[in-house]
Amino acid sequence: MIKIAVDCFGGDHSPAAQVEGSLLALEQFPDLSLILAGHEGILQSHLEGKTYDKERLFILHAPDVVGCDEKPTDAIRLKKESSMMKTIRLLREDDTVAGIVSMGSTGALVAAATLRLGRIRNVIRPAFCPILPTMNGGIVGVCDSGANVDITPDYLQQYAVMGSLYLENVYGVKNPRVALLNIGVEAEKGDDLRKKAYELLRETSGINFVGNMESRDLLSGKFDLVVCDGFSGNVLLKSTEGALLEMLGKLKRDIRSRLINKFGALFLYKMFKEEKDFMNYQNYGGSVLLGTAKVVVKGHGSSKATAVTKCIEQAYRMELNSLTEKTEAALDVLFGAQETEE
Amino acid sequence: MIKIAVDCFGGDHSPAAQVEGSLLALEQFPDLSLILAGHEGILQSHLEGKTYDKERLFILHAPDVVGCDEKPTDAIRLKKESSMMKTIRLLREDDTVAGIVSMGSTGALVAAATLRLGRIRNVIRPAFCPILPTMNGGIVGVCDSGANVDITPDYLQQYAVMGSLYLENVYGVKNPRVALLNIGVEAEKGDDLRKKAYELLRETSGINFVGNMESRDLLSGKFDLVVCDGFSGNVLLKSTEGALLEMLGKLKRDIRSRLINKFGALFLYKMFKEEKDFMNYQNYGGSVLLGTAKVVVKGHGSSKATAVTKCIEQAYRMELNSLTEKTEAALDVLFGAQETEE
Repeated sequence: MIKIAVDCFGGDHSPAAQVEGSLLALEQFPDLSLILAGHEGILQSHLEGKTYDKERLFILHAPDVVGCDEKPTDAIRLKKESSMMKTIRLLREDDTVAGIVSMGSTGALVAAATLRLGRIRNVIRPAFCPILPTMNGGIVGVCDSGANVDITPDYLQQYAVMGSLYLENVYGVKNPRVALLNIGVEAEKGDDLRKKAYELLRETSGINFVGNMESRDLLSGKFDLVVCDGFSGNVLLKSTEGALLEMLGKLKRDIRSRLINKFGALFLYKMFKEEKDFMNYQNYGGSVLLGTAKVVVKGHGSSKATAVTKCIEQAYRMELNSLTEKTEAALDVLFGAQETEE
Repeated sequence: MIKIAVDCFGGDHSPAAQVEGSLLALEQFPDLSLILAGHEGILQSHLEGKTYDKERLFILHAPDVVGCDEKPTDAIRLKKESSMMKTIRLLREDDTVAGIVSMGSTGALVAAATLRLGRIRNVIRPAFCPILPTMNGGIVGVCDSGANVDITPDYLQQYAVMGSLYLENVYGVKNPRVALLNIGVEAEKGDDLRKKAYELLRETSGINFVGNMESRDLLSGKFDLVVCDGFSGNVLLKSTEGALLEMLGKLKRDIRSRLINKFGALFLYKMFKEEKDFMNYQNYGGSVLLGTAKVVVKGHGSSKATAVTKCIEQAYRMELNSLTEKTEAALDVLFGAQETEE
């Protein structure tokens, strides 16, 4: 049995989406058990009348909520009774609980997970690795998308190792092609960080480093994992998402602006629906935080039930495939098995 | 008469696109005079049979060409007889020539312009400012898109001043709304560079700083100028462009994949053509280099004739509206009129 805790408060559709998504996940995976964290009375009212396996769903009462703009340190210090902080405490204390899924404040989640759960041995800092669809029907991971903005080349080396294992073990990508986000493809491109990282990645055994990638090729399907600092990763991700959504909005407006367009679009209804689904990042789950001692999945604040289910599935598969242990073993090979300083 | 030099070699369609684009520009602007730099015999053969005002077109013979992957320092040192380096030399020596338009190597152009032409007083480093179309029919400038990857907050301050003047004087944007590219909109977001830059921009008189911008809002029309380091600016620009082009390609493939789609698309032919034009960055001219003592416009390597004309128009309007002088005056107000050290 794999046990995952779901932080049910935080996000635009909480707790309805979290509860519904949890029930869907329980149906999908018979060896999954869920702990729903949040105000017990409210959660019970959302569960009322629903059919589910009561032996695989538990409630962790937490009367408080971390606000989405709360300062991370304040959230940790002052919101001890919140669904997020109580879940983190549970993870810390209960060895049988594998991980947390949360749609709440990103900053608070990263801070609490890093400080309270600790890191996998040798990990400098945990990093986010969201997954995007590529234009040829595949996927690409981006690590880091915003957890760490000030980094050194060895961060990028670790992202490559952790991200490769994630793609292999959770998505079945064999020998993932790892690229370094840069402003040109040639080896000598970029700033000092990129030049040094390029050399380091080239020398790192156990990964399949294929060189630099320009941001325009993110969705090309030529790469499985892109490693980058959290600032440019965030820019990369949000500008790609933003451009696609803006374009879709423009198409919609332009179709409505002329009768002949509206008529033609009738025949393309199914196709446009598919494009919209394709661009809906909710269909690809949340950003997992790689490098923490337990599984952490951050879902988008706007997640609806199916997106919550996807996030739970990610956490489930990470645990099922022992990603934490495999990551530890791989980093031990590179950096030794002595305990890192806290 | 405004005199501009066009580097006719370098770029995918050179020199045909450069020659044709130049002739179009001459037709468009009666007080424009052009110097075409490149191999005289080849240029003459391209001009043969064409009608144009011979009193406003000159040839600067340059037998050599800077390769697109050439090391900038090698290009400056070894390619003295190239069309790019001879044009830069002409600009340096001839006060009557206002600027250069080139589709050649970006690195070589930036290095040669900065080293040989010099900077406007107080400018730390010249920076690129390309223009993109926004989804509501406006434009947005991005400064810097890749000239300087290692920067300090005062670079961003100068980008804001120079970019604002550019948008006002060349595009008629009144009181341009300046945003700082960041990973969140709140004032305290981002790394040290961003936090310090935010404060500095807020205190800078003469610009209309409106706060942080997330990359997803680049095309929203809410901002006129985005300032950023060259690395993330490059990521921002290329991922936006990449996502739009990949999406257009996907739509095309999906339309062709089913008969009903093909049928529906017949009615949308005109709309799709417009979307394609909208996303064609060639229609928005080149990246101007702000901060050099003379006007420098870098066109895309894939520029065709109309894109070359657009670039010439940019250079022409920069000179027509005395952008260099206005930039110098604005920076003098902020930093004083003493000469900067070289």
